[in-house]
Amino acid sequence: MTQQREPQRGAARVTRADVAKRAGVSTAVVSYTLNGTKKVSEATQARVLEAVRALGYRPNAAARALKLGSMAQLGLIVPGVLNRFFADLTDQVEQVAAAHGLALMVTSARHGMASAIGHLAARQVDGVLIATDVEAADLTPLATLGIPAVVLEKRLDGVACVRADRYQGARVAVEHLLWHGHRRVAFVGPNEGGRRQAWIDASSAAGLAAEPMVTSDFTREGGYRAGAALAAAPDRPTAVFVSSDEQAIGVLLALHEAGVRVPDDIAVASFDGSQESAYCWPPLTTAAQPLAAMVRIAVDHLVAPGSGPLDVKLPTELIVRSSCGCAPSTAA
Amino acid sequence: MTQQREPQRGAARVTRADVAKRAGVSTAVVSYTLNGTKKVSEATQARVLEAVRALGYRPNAAARALKLGSMAQLGLIVPGVLNRFFADLTDQVEQVAAAHGLALMVTSARHGMASAIGHLAARQVDGVLIATDVEAADLTPLATLGIPAVVLEKRLDGVACVRADRYQGARVAVEHLLWHGHRRVAFVGPNEGGRRQAWIDASSAAGLAAEPMVTSDFTREGGYRAGAALAAAPDRPTAVFVSSDEQAIGVLLALHEAGVRVPDDIAVASFDGSQESAYCWPPLTTAAQPLAAMVRIAVDHLVAPGSGPLDVKLPTELIVRSSCGCAPSTAA
Repeated sequence: MTQQREPQRGAARVTRADVAKRAGVSTAVVSYTLNGTKKVSEATQARVLEAVRALGYRPNAAARALKLGSMAQLGLIVPGVLNRFFADLTDQVEQVAAAHGLALMVTSARHGMASAIGHLAARQVDGVLIATDVEAADLTPLATLGIPAVVLEKRLDGVACVRADRYQGARVAVEHLLWHGHRRVAFVGPNEGGRRQAWIDASSAAGLAAEPMVTSDFTREGGYRAGAALAAAPDRPTAVFVSSDEQAIGVLLALHEAGVRVPDDIAVASFDGSQESAYCWPPLTTAAQPLAAMVRIAVDHLVAPGSGPLDVKLPTELIVRSSCGCAPSTAA
Repeated sequence: MTQQREPQRGAARVTRADVAKRAGVSTAVVSYTLNGTKKVSEATQARVLEAVRALGYRPNAAARALKLGSMAQLGLIVPGVLNRFFADLTDQVEQVAAAHGLALMVTSARHGMASAIGHLAARQVDGVLIATDVEAADLTPLATLGIPAVVLEKRLDGVACVRADRYQGARVAVEHLLWHGHRRVAFVGPNEGGRRQAWIDASSAAGLAAEPMVTSDFTREGGYRAGAALAAAPDRPTAVFVSSDEQAIGVLLALHEAGVRVPDDIAVASFDGSQESAYCWPPLTTAAQPLAAMVRIAVDHLVAPGSGPLDVKLPTELIVRSSCGCAPSTAA
């Protein structure tokens, strides 16, 4: 990667002031446009980007000449570190990056995607992995600076992406609960998306109504509230598919507190396959995202982005533990 | 902070080549010395650092002039993100940094502290928080470049540090188990340090032998093995103090699997106060590190490092939940 993007001596002499002059804006506006720290109008943005391209402005390349370290570096943007799945992901990216001789910097998108991308771009990263929701427009600074990016959470036209097949994963998990004989399987998760659709389709294919649904965001707190609602429901379901391990941890706590036994009273299956899913009680049956493969493919692409477009969707694997009723829980 | 460490126009003109020439080494050796990516002899290191100081070489300041973003940035070094306590810490640092208008870059020390520090220094961070084991020598590049650092996990002479009082926290937790009437309180953790000493002293003060001790590293896996050993012990203790929440999660899983009830058969107390401790089953009684205060003090110091030496040790707070036997667990 370093070989492909060496500093260009000529381009490095172009300064931010040159860009500002050509675009007819202040140098601050050039910064705002490239790092997204402040909103600028679309017309201004277009003028600045035209000037960047025309002049061959490469702050990244220029700054690289001053680097202390010789090691190239990847950036990773996560929604936050409190969700254990993203901690697992970060750990995996760090391992794969190290195998490529790359350092890793992690930042979160909690203060806005444009800001997160701007910070990584400004710090001369050589490639960016984005593991959270992102719009194509957010990626403009990276494209302008020639920094390759791979998106892990969604598909965007013309952007390299590697995803787990959430529909397939959720469908297999719900079908596993149905295979156990459950006729009333609840859903906990967002009121949209592939996992919800898979639950609806699997229920329908089994001749069952898809209900009840308890809407929850992707947090333990949301899962806890959903679990409490399920425990208190007059016509309690005998099984529930939860759309992430993180939420499922919250569901389990609420069920334990209400004295509802898992899996005897309610069987639980979830999605993600975080390390956490193996250490909660009871251990979770979960559709595991193929993290190692996803990260390997994504980093390979960042290291050799010239290898063409990338649009990969990988199947999940159902890890069967005791929360669904497969392995009897000793303490039940 | 930015105001205090503006680029010095004169100093910025000094190049790495100037430093190399004065020190009589190659430019690569200058990089190795400053970022720690390769070992250099002590004599060479001394020559390079003398040249850096004499010439006023400031790669950090020079590079800052090229920054896209105007926001200053903190770096955080953690042992890894898989331990939930460090995820909580990262989240807390991000919040406090944001309140100061600072961005945050996180990197781990899994490939060596010198390398982690070198990468942050090379990327022009304005201050570094170190939340993992570090030696004074590792901090040399930061001191040389005038980048302030605060260490959160240990005390080093002449280095700003903010710590939780581990001895006090462990002592209060063990005494709480003794207050419940337990006469045989086990210890799970490393065979050294303040937490182990507190367990020995608390047991001794109660006229009890401090035993059994099960050695474990700070991982869930280590805790799981320790829990399995406790469950199988011929003369099983009725309580256990575990030196981190992370290990305690592993202990709980092993006890559940063995059909040993918590807290009825073995009461559990731990240390850290991670968010995870509230969501496991049963929820853990734990000596909580005052993370918010620790981080606030540390970041305040990084923002205004001129305010003098910093050596703060803060008390923990015992959060009482059901694992010790205080709150009856509904599902027991």
